[in-house]
Amino acid sequence: MNDRFLRACRREPVDRTPVWFMRQAGRYMKEYQLIRARHGILDVCKTPDLAAQVTLQPIERFAVDAAIIFADILLPLEPMGLDVAFLEGEGPVIRNPLRQAQAVNSLRPVNHEAFRFSGEAIRRTRAMLADRVPLIGFAGAPFTLASYAIEGGSSRSYVTTKTFMYAQPRAWHQLMQKLVHTIITYLQVQICAGAQAIQIFDSWVGCLAPGDYEEYVFPHVQAMIEAIRAEGVPVIYFGTGTATLLPLMRRVGSDVIGLDWRVPLDEAWAVLGHEVAVQGNLDPVVLFAPLVEIERRVHDILVRAGQRPGHIFNLGHGILPGTPVDHVAATIEYVHKHSQHSHIRR
Amino acid sequence: MNDRFLRACRREPVDRTPVWFMRQAGRYMKEYQLIRARHGILDVCKTPDLAAQVTLQPIERFAVDAAIIFADILLPLEPMGLDVAFLEGEGPVIRNPLRQAQAVNSLRPVNHEAFRFSGEAIRRTRAMLADRVPLIGFAGAPFTLASYAIEGGSSRSYVTTKTFMYAQPRAWHQLMQKLVHTIITYLQVQICAGAQAIQIFDSWVGCLAPGDYEEYVFPHVQAMIEAIRAEGVPVIYFGTGTATLLPLMRRVGSDVIGLDWRVPLDEAWAVLGHEVAVQGNLDPVVLFAPLVEIERRVHDILVRAGQRPGHIFNLGHGILPGTPVDHVAATIEYVHKHSQHSHIRR
Repeated sequence: MNDRFLRACRREPVDRTPVWFMRQAGRYMKEYQLIRARHGILDVCKTPDLAAQVTLQPIERFAVDAAIIFADILLPLEPMGLDVAFLEGEGPVIRNPLRQAQAVNSLRPVNHEAFRFSGEAIRRTRAMLADRVPLIGFAGAPFTLASYAIEGGSSRSYVTTKTFMYAQPRAWHQLMQKLVHTIITYLQVQICAGAQAIQIFDSWVGCLAPGDYEEYVFPHVQAMIEAIRAEGVPVIYFGTGTATLLPLMRRVGSDVIGLDWRVPLDEAWAVLGHEVAVQGNLDPVVLFAPLVEIERRVHDILVRAGQRPGHIFNLGHGILPGTPVDHVAATIEYVHKHSQHSHIRR
Repeated sequence: MNDRFLRACRREPVDRTPVWFMRQAGRYMKEYQLIRARHGILDVCKTPDLAAQVTLQPIERFAVDAAIIFADILLPLEPMGLDVAFLEGEGPVIRNPLRQAQAVNSLRPVNHEAFRFSGEAIRRTRAMLADRVPLIGFAGAPFTLASYAIEGGSSRSYVTTKTFMYAQPRAWHQLMQKLVHTIITYLQVQICAGAQAIQIFDSWVGCLAPGDYEEYVFPHVQAMIEAIRAEGVPVIYFGTGTATLLPLMRRVGSDVIGLDWRVPLDEAWAVLGHEVAVQGNLDPVVLFAPLVEIERRVHDILVRAGQRPGHIFNLGHGILPGTPVDHVAATIEYVHKHSQHSHIRR
């Protein structure tokens, strides 16, 4: 098996820097659009054959070093009693958002059975992958899920979420605990079914001041990551806009920290300390640039990562719709070429 | 005159920390809504009596230490040939966005006459203020204006803007130069008419990696700020999500750097060095929290600012619609109370 990705998670030497992309199965691929023309996104997620098929699409086409199961971060909210829908062109919507402290009490407890579809999708994907590359499972982090549950969708300023947090801290912490319980259950199903690493997406946590992160988020993420690591797989913790949160994020105890493009990789790694692996961090928009510009920037990131083991190449956020497919292929080639040539020890 | 604000811009001792709020004249005030029920936002901006009246609304109601002229950052785009509109509930839209390099050539050069309405609004406001507090003029920064001009509105990932920048760097720099010329012209009119300080809003510049900021934005902002400071007024340079850009932003040469809430004020000031004043940096959502929580956080920011002159209290971004008016009043009171009691030298 190509185990570069898993070795890098554990900060072991690799022959070339491993590379994969968040949302590597997505709208920028024609193969994906063909499936989505006939099936809604929730259908694809919950039909194991479709989820496996979509997960494999980038593996068949590109030389990426890991697969990530096709799913949506909001799936765990459904069995808790939240009504999740995807409106075309509008992104996710929660039709019954959590606005009152009492609503937290009525969230339903979730057991492994609720995520049977996910386990099955992972089993089929693993069979189809036939150990070519490892399979990553994932979930949204409690803050990011709470923000969707409370706002009712995506948000620019997170007024409702933060106001809930400030004005009803007890209900907030109760909500976070319930989310953590659900997420752990969901990820246990994925790991049990064969997920070989887990990524936690705290995509919107960068809207918080460091003091708020420490008080309202940190203990919950830490408890969650401890429970997941106990299952024996490496854990990646990722967010965007997190430059000032990195010292706290380091303390949650993940094996890998995912970085966005706003932080120079070497500086961020120095802040985190080198006892943790890092993943990132090309601006997803750079994939729209001319190839010569992409290559220059890939090279720059690899130079910043240096000879030290423990770097996984990725974008700083998901691949954007409209990204040229040949630029994706070229980026992977540049990563492998320049990391081979930079004498990374085996 | 209450000159706390201007003294703090120059890092001179003050009796209490000055405080004002971005968007302090805005939708959260009933007085403002009454005017807007009868006039579109562009009408208010371009009718000097209305602009002056709205500018004065927060001055009549609150003990803020500065007024800021009511206007919109997109106004300078209109005389350049861009068709700016405000659709209810959707924010600003440019009906003929810049998508081709050639479109930059056809932007019209702008002279002082184009901004006569702004000079007149400032003259009337100064007369109505009668030196109670100083009046701040403002403009959008070239990157933030370019992002609206190219995207055609607000954006989440700035794909079109950055792709323009990466793929057509010559046209990009030409566009930035034209914007800088227009902005300087606009601000000269404001200063000539009586604006006593200038704030430059680079609200969305935090979407850029530091290397991109340095290459595509920095030289233009630096040239612009040098020209404005030559007019003899202090300049505040503000952006959000700028934690990793601060060392570069410091070098543009403004008198004051505006900070958002993601950076602890003391740490950011240490990074900037203490030869520059700072403005900020309460999360605007904190104004929705219970008063006891607001007071605790105001106090925390004042403690971080310490005894050193050169701190202007503000939010980390504009006041949000729906902010409780009595919380705004209380926040101002807390700033004055706690900064008086912390023995700031005169």
